[in-house]
Amino acid sequence: MSDFLGETRDLLRRTPDVLRALLAGLPETWTATPDVEDGWRPRDVVGHLISGELDDWIPRTRRILEHGTAKPFDPFDRFAHEERDVDAPLDALIERFAELRADNLAQFDVLASERDLDRRGLHPSLGEVTLRELLATWAVHDLDHVSQIYAGLAGSYDAEVGPWKAYLGILLRRDDPAAVAG
Amino acid sequence: MSDFLGETRDLLRRTPDVLRALLAGLPETWTATPDVEDGWRPRDVVGHLISGELDDWIPRTRRILEHGTAKPFDPFDRFAHEERDVDAPLDALIERFAELRADNLAQFDVLASERDLDRRGLHPSLGEVTLRELLATWAVHDLDHVSQIYAGLAGSYDAEVGPWKAYLGILLRRDDPAAVAG
Repeated sequence: MSDFLGETRDLLRRTPDVLRALLAGLPETWTATPDVEDGWRPRDVVGHLISGELDDWIPRTRRILEHGTAKPFDPFDRFAHEERDVDAPLDALIERFAELRADNLAQFDVLASERDLDRRGLHPSLGEVTLRELLATWAVHDLDHVSQIYAGLAGSYDAEVGPWKAYLGILLRRDDPAAVAG
Repeated sequence: MSDFLGETRDLLRRTPDVLRALLAGLPETWTATPDVEDGWRPRDVVGHLISGELDDWIPRTRRILEHGTAKPFDPFDRFAHEERDVDAPLDALIERFAELRADNLAQFDVLASERDLDRRGLHPSLGEVTLRELLATWAVHDLDHVSQIYAGLAGSYDAEVGPWKAYLGILLRRDDPAAVAG
């Protein structure tokens, strides 16, 4: 039998280490480019992940456990990082995220267990959702946004690869999402 | 003045640590899904990165330095991992890649320096390329394929996120590359 809770936590606990390995101390040559035009630089992505730790996953877990579907989740501000983190260096944002993630996983363990996973809450736009879906989304949201960091890093070298760009889907898709590498 | 060689090496040396942080010991629940239908699972991506270390970046660096544009690069087999790595566990592939990457960065340092970066070689399809472009492509190729690993990991939880899929571009794009998250 699969251990959904343990396996999802396993992914969630890795993200701070992945961000450190990828980004800590990396020269700004790599980190100053957004994933797409008007998109997010690595520091914006880490800021958005911090917002999730502050305002999304644990508050919504509590709402499900305390109110079920009787009281919908508060809306989540996807751009809260823009003002909050404007002066913070990228490495400090990564460490802030790492602390919050560790605290939140510990909190989740106190709040909920396997037998709570089918409990339901009310998303303001999506309707009824389960705690299991919230936990799965926490993990996939990490993957979605860390993947965005890769597009920004690659974009920093868009001009450097010369004719090889034709083979590099990660660069072609920044110009045209449906592009297919040669 | 930017230190192109040092900054590109900085990204290249990180990839084994990123793969360890993301994948080493991760349950198969997460690692059995390809990035897209008929695509690559994380183990296939790491295998392909191993092929690059064996047959692409250093042999082509040597070719540029020894023959310039007089002798084109040998074609690179993008599917060499399929037979070679069929029995290797993912964690063993990551360690194999880490060893090869460390060796190759050390070899590159012996072979070439900043003043060689404008030397030219001949790609069998793309025509003339520089050593600088080859080095940049080595780094962006890492980013392109590691990013593919994220799509496979996310795909493993496609059904688990329930209605939240509408907000998760990394899942929507596995079905339709041009999809935009809600």
